[in-house]
Amino acid sequence: MENLNLTSTAEEMDQAYDESLEKILELIEEKKYFQCRDELLKHDEVEISEMLDDVRREYDLQKVVILFRTLPKDVSVEVFSYLDVDYQVDVINMITDPEIEFIIDELDFDDMIDVLEELPANVVDKILSKTTKAERKKINQFLKYKDDTAGSLMTPDYINLTKSWTVREALDHIKEVGLDSETIYSCYVIDRGRKLIGVVSLRALVICDDNLLVSDIMHDDPLCVNVDEDQEEVMDLFNRYGYLAIPVVDNEGRLVGIVTVDDILDVIEEETSEDIERMGGVISNDDKSYLDMSVWSHVKARFPWLLLLMCSYFVTGGIISSFENALSDMICLVTYMPLLMGTAGNSGTQSSTLVIRGMATGDIELDDFIKVAWKEIRVSVTVGLCLSVINTARIVFITHEPFLVAVTVCLSMIIAIMIAKLIGAMLPMIAKKIGIDPALMAGPLMASITDMLALGTYFLMAGIFLHI
Amino acid sequence: MENLNLTSTAEEMDQAYDESLEKILELIEEKKYFQCRDELLKHDEVEISEMLDDVRREYDLQKVVILFRTLPKDVSVEVFSYLDVDYQVDVINMITDPEIEFIIDELDFDDMIDVLEELPANVVDKILSKTTKAERKKINQFLKYKDDTAGSLMTPDYINLTKSWTVREALDHIKEVGLDSETIYSCYVIDRGRKLIGVVSLRALVICDDNLLVSDIMHDDPLCVNVDEDQEEVMDLFNRYGYLAIPVVDNEGRLVGIVTVDDILDVIEEETSEDIERMGGVISNDDKSYLDMSVWSHVKARFPWLLLLMCSYFVTGGIISSFENALSDMICLVTYMPLLMGTAGNSGTQSSTLVIRGMATGDIELDDFIKVAWKEIRVSVTVGLCLSVINTARIVFITHEPFLVAVTVCLSMIIAIMIAKLIGAMLPMIAKKIGIDPALMAGPLMASITDMLALGTYFLMAGIFLHI
Repeated sequence: MENLNLTSTAEEMDQAYDESLEKILELIEEKKYFQCRDELLKHDEVEISEMLDDVRREYDLQKVVILFRTLPKDVSVEVFSYLDVDYQVDVINMITDPEIEFIIDELDFDDMIDVLEELPANVVDKILSKTTKAERKKINQFLKYKDDTAGSLMTPDYINLTKSWTVREALDHIKEVGLDSETIYSCYVIDRGRKLIGVVSLRALVICDDNLLVSDIMHDDPLCVNVDEDQEEVMDLFNRYGYLAIPVVDNEGRLVGIVTVDDILDVIEEETSEDIERMGGVISNDDKSYLDMSVWSHVKARFPWLLLLMCSYFVTGGIISSFENALSDMICLVTYMPLLMGTAGNSGTQSSTLVIRGMATGDIELDDFIKVAWKEIRVSVTVGLCLSVINTARIVFITHEPFLVAVTVCLSMIIAIMIAKLIGAMLPMIAKKIGIDPALMAGPLMASITDMLALGTYFLMAGIFLHI
Repeated sequence: MENLNLTSTAEEMDQAYDESLEKILELIEEKKYFQCRDELLKHDEVEISEMLDDVRREYDLQKVVILFRTLPKDVSVEVFSYLDVDYQVDVINMITDPEIEFIIDELDFDDMIDVLEELPANVVDKILSKTTKAERKKINQFLKYKDDTAGSLMTPDYINLTKSWTVREALDHIKEVGLDSETIYSCYVIDRGRKLIGVVSLRALVICDDNLLVSDIMHDDPLCVNVDEDQEEVMDLFNRYGYLAIPVVDNEGRLVGIVTVDDILDVIEEETSEDIERMGGVISNDDKSYLDMSVWSHVKARFPWLLLLMCSYFVTGGIISSFENALSDMICLVTYMPLLMGTAGNSGTQSSTLVIRGMATGDIELDDFIKVAWKEIRVSVTVGLCLSVINTARIVFITHEPFLVAVTVCLSMIIAIMIAKLIGAMLPMIAKKIGIDPALMAGPLMASITDMLALGTYFLMAGIFLHI
């Protein structure tokens, strides 16, 4: 196994990372910053940025900036581009003007825009005053695109070709300008009015004969998105087509930028977190990570839902209290309340989870409403019957309560499961139809509604079978 | 706005899709298959595959195969590669041997392996008997890699270079073999023993001077993964580094394949669905979509959790029934049970959602245990106090119950929220520590545990303050 050190597996990398981090934290304690740097430079830029983040959590940003300054300039720009936008801004605020200028200059255009968007206006003005007029115009245009649109994701650093060029001419052009481009693997063909008319992959250019024309090998009528398109739609297209980049056009069909797949990976993470958090009853209000959020932001993210749901329990409590007399006559009914409410809630959550995810991945569409409902009805009857058999056995043979109690509980359970599964499946679809995020309809809200309905059904059944 | 038709926005594409689909479904009704084909061919391969999927849902697979056969051969192979693996297998089972041979021949290697893995052994043997011996050996090797590992995702169709070549020689080599390669944008440099020693991007090759050596411009000691690495780890690396491809090596460090970013998009979707479904109390047992799963598979996916949780409610019911006498003396206490259990459950779900997502995105690590616990305690006290104020006001001024009832309910609520938030946050971390998927610890299971604890706290407090 002597060769293992040639190939660093994920586990070995993690271990090496942890060891280095420990050493660095010690060296900082002793203020040996240049030894820190040597230790940092054993790792790649992504890992260095992660280490700096760990240093920030352990000490403070001051220390990060000190370390950051010890790094060679080209490395420090790379590292900077991997930091969270929040900390990029903090770092910018703590370093000198020439340093800022160097970083802004060297960053990819789309990364630079992300930083500028977060900086205070006076700092942005200071930075812009040092750029050329053309550059300034471009930056200002990009700063205008709304958050979460294709425009906010795109970069203007793409390669554009002219259709009358030969493959050789195109390759020469790429050689000349390729270094400043975000990607050179998809090249875009535009006409004189800057309208997008085709796309050529670098692969095609490299493989094809040098004397062919760009127009011979380009793909006409390429897939593109509008600058104002929502980032979720853009993400969808990447998922469906597996492309490395998608061109972005304005309302007149002019090419204004491209979105690359690496930026989409971030969008996927962001959108998934938002969905999961909404389903868990958390308001995702900013992009900060769990540990970086203050107690107060955590409270703001969680309190509103808890309050709203508490009010819903007042209603549930009201239902119970209107049956108070009946219940005190037959207190054993109370012991089955958690069972009924819980099972209904869980059944509904299962359905809403599946439907919300199905809609997110495109497996379920709004037209499938009837099909989904019919499936849920059949599933809930089957599940309800199976659970009822076990439950009846327990009530009759173990807790020795009257058979009619078992009938009441089990019939209520089957009905409650059916109602819950139907509501759990339908609510997200209705939400989507009227333009609300389906994820908001899952989780706690749905469970509260089914709680009430389960309880109502229970008391109704108890009235019929037990005459309470 | 006359130019709008040049640039097809997502919405317009959707509309065009729906119109075509409607027309196709009508044409199938009238058995006009060749007109169907013409309609299909107005769309790209991804959309055609989606339309065929819609046709399958509306009619049956037979119709899909008929349409599939009307397509030009090169289009049909592309379309085939975009179908779900399940339906690829169904289609294979319904078409003739020469058709199978053509499709298998033309598919990308990794797509072919995915199909072969799902086919019955005798069909695989038949297909293999028609390939060359070398090809057969390679296929057999790939079929051996375990599901959900780097090995199962990778393709052997990559470009490898020799470090002593010049850039010109490398580009000539790429021109020769590039057509059969999954990607040519990352090229791998191997030594005589096939050990991976470097990586060169096509970008570098195109931009650099033709006479430089590959060894001059290659990146030494590239990031790579072992064939047995879990796909989640591979996904993590793509997320962190934003690469287009990552090389895969065996235990001796020899290059055996590459994983490309488009395959990772599928992995992300799969892993996210699994997480979300587990958090919603659903066992994700196969890759079928919601509508394609039979009622029986839905029952199998949902029943086990519901049963397990029902048993937990038996315990909750037991706690209640041991306080039956006390409760019938003071039945108003029952009305607050949903409030306490529900609020505890929701609080716990919020915390577990945030912690599970934080661990999935790498924001929270196991070392942060104490920090997370401390944050949860502070958040829960704040949230609990705020809710209590509102709740006390309601109990005293609106429902006019004794002040001690308010004290009992509110104190129980604060304690229950704290317990629930701690459990909600800690359980997923403990699960990860002992190697269980944290997502299994969220959702229903956590809610059941907190239900019991909330109820226990409530009765304890009632005993102290109300002497029941």
